[in-house]
Amino acid sequence: MAQRHLDPMNPEAAPGEAPAEALAGYLRAQATGFLRALRTHRETGGGAAAGAGESSEAALALRRSARRISGTLHTFRPLLDADWSESLRPELAWLSGTLGREHAYSARLDRLVTALNRLSGATGFPTQPAGSVPSARTAAARTAQAPPAQPAPDRGTLTVGAAKAGALLDRQLTLARTRAHSAALQALGSSRFHAVADNVAVLASEVPLTPTAPTADLRPLAAAAHDRLRDAVTGLPLHTAGRPYNAEALIHGLSPDTVPHPQDAPWHQVRLLLRLHRYALEVLHPGAVPVDVRLLAAGEALNRHRDASEAASAAAAAARTPRIAPATAYALGVLHADQRHEVEAARFAFQQSWQKEAVSTS
Amino acid sequence: MAQRHLDPMNPEAAPGEAPAEALAGYLRAQATGFLRALRTHRETGGGAAAGAGESSEAALALRRSARRISGTLHTFRPLLDADWSESLRPELAWLSGTLGREHAYSARLDRLVTALNRLSGATGFPTQPAGSVPSARTAAARTAQAPPAQPAPDRGTLTVGAAKAGALLDRQLTLARTRAHSAALQALGSSRFHAVADNVAVLASEVPLTPTAPTADLRPLAAAAHDRLRDAVTGLPLHTAGRPYNAEALIHGLSPDTVPHPQDAPWHQVRLLLRLHRYALEVLHPGAVPVDVRLLAAGEALNRHRDASEAASAAAAAARTPRIAPATAYALGVLHADQRHEVEAARFAFQQSWQKEAVSTS
Repeated sequence: MAQRHLDPMNPEAAPGEAPAEALAGYLRAQATGFLRALRTHRETGGGAAAGAGESSEAALALRRSARRISGTLHTFRPLLDADWSESLRPELAWLSGTLGREHAYSARLDRLVTALNRLSGATGFPTQPAGSVPSARTAAARTAQAPPAQPAPDRGTLTVGAAKAGALLDRQLTLARTRAHSAALQALGSSRFHAVADNVAVLASEVPLTPTAPTADLRPLAAAAHDRLRDAVTGLPLHTAGRPYNAEALIHGLSPDTVPHPQDAPWHQVRLLLRLHRYALEVLHPGAVPVDVRLLAAGEALNRHRDASEAASAAAAAARTPRIAPATAYALGVLHADQRHEVEAARFAFQQSWQKEAVSTS
Repeated sequence: MAQRHLDPMNPEAAPGEAPAEALAGYLRAQATGFLRALRTHRETGGGAAAGAGESSEAALALRRSARRISGTLHTFRPLLDADWSESLRPELAWLSGTLGREHAYSARLDRLVTALNRLSGATGFPTQPAGSVPSARTAAARTAQAPPAQPAPDRGTLTVGAAKAGALLDRQLTLARTRAHSAALQALGSSRFHAVADNVAVLASEVPLTPTAPTADLRPLAAAAHDRLRDAVTGLPLHTAGRPYNAEALIHGLSPDTVPHPQDAPWHQVRLLLRLHRYALEVLHPGAVPVDVRLLAAGEALNRHRDASEAASAAAAAARTPRIAPATAYALGVLHADQRHEVEAARFAFQQSWQKEAVSTS
């Protein structure tokens, strides 16, 4: 009952004891979830057409557990067997990265196609056969043996340039997604993955705590995770981000550098620290679900920041394809700038929700 | 003294009498200014290299007076000889349009070159020889016989695409500006212009008021101008404009239509009505200079809206030049989207200042 009145932004304020048993319980639960998702994935044929939907859900669930285990090992590492947890973490990061890539390419293509339609004045989503609307295509794309869905943009409302840009992005991102899918399947069949699964199975039965852990207090470690987040946010240009239309995100939009915008990196870092903070709160307050909605809003703004940043890069990369038509390049330029403005909008949204956080916890 | 405490948004609230003499006085003053500017323009050689700066200033002053006379004839037309003022107004509009075009092309090129530099990550203005920085180039460009200044973009910080886009825009807008300059010089030497000048000379000595004008009240007519402004603002999508990053201005950014954005038209209309309202306030309160700063801020936001809208169109038009390189087209796409976001930012700025107006006058 008391957990309903927690201040989720301030782990130190948690009433009562937060025993190390909560840590072990959380890790066991995540490990069990991991193994269950793995079983489902195998039973649904690892992405074969018949169980594509469940298989894809299972892969996402695997990744979700892997991220939580990895983050928890990091935040509470003084309470866990050091050698064991330090060897497991990079393996979980590898797994989570490999499993996430297919979905990321799918989502990026959806985002860019949706933007192209919006920029072409198409009201809402294009009116296409159900089999080719972006979300359905994404689902279909997750099937393993099925060939990639053919692009079918609604060319009636698109200029030639926008239609060609859409087709080019579809080709490039579908190819990347297909490769990512194969890589994920290969990873899940590898001995490297089996070693990870064995380690997670250990975690499901007995969490390797240090001898002093059972009497330790989790809250200082969770508070340290919160401090790292707060410090990183302090380093962000929040004053600028809070002034709408500051035009910061498109600076260097035409610079000769082809690397991702360096100005995005601190925001990506805060996104990771916010996630670690959220996982630490889950460990401390297993009943407090969902976590503070404003914390979720801040996290969603940073996800949107990351997605728009990567979509903008994909549009810029597509524009460097040799021998494209000027109209295609023009459309990709508009699309790139549009997504960089989404980046700016996401920073504004983060600033707004963070400001509310700051007020509510002061 | 009382005029210092006027509420400039509400002409009805003006204390004391506002006699028709104020109208005649205002028109006489503007006509005198017009004739003085015309004399200066002729003395400085009509734009010959020696007196280019003064000549250009004189042309702007001519236009400034022409706009004020025309607007005042419109707002207070029941008090003025109808045939005379109705025949003069379109001629003043022709003159003001012809004189404004050269400056508009110059300013548009400056805006686009500045944006290209910003988008290329050049900090502030490019470090170029003084003769080629945008503002100096604009001034030089106003000279008549001098050949158009050569573009000298700072290619060190520009991608090939941005540099080529800049050179293309420079060529196209410099050509347009040169033509506008010739057209303006030709207009100022035409018999059509001499007829306008003769009419304005009449105005400087004796304003053709109607017989009932001397006892009339100016305030209802000024209030009607204010009402027309308020009604037009009511029709604007201010609720949307007040939500930052609403992404409205770039809708249709890639639509097949090549006409200017229809969504911009009501804003342009409000800009004209705001100017008429401002001129009416100048008639009523000749001492109250400057007019309310918030009114000026609203007007500046609408100027910025117009400028960005036209710059975005110029970038889109340049992208339709045959046989340009894809990199050039890409840069023009980014530039177009950037300027459409400036349009959106200007609407937000207008909404903010108008909201303050509304609160201050309620």
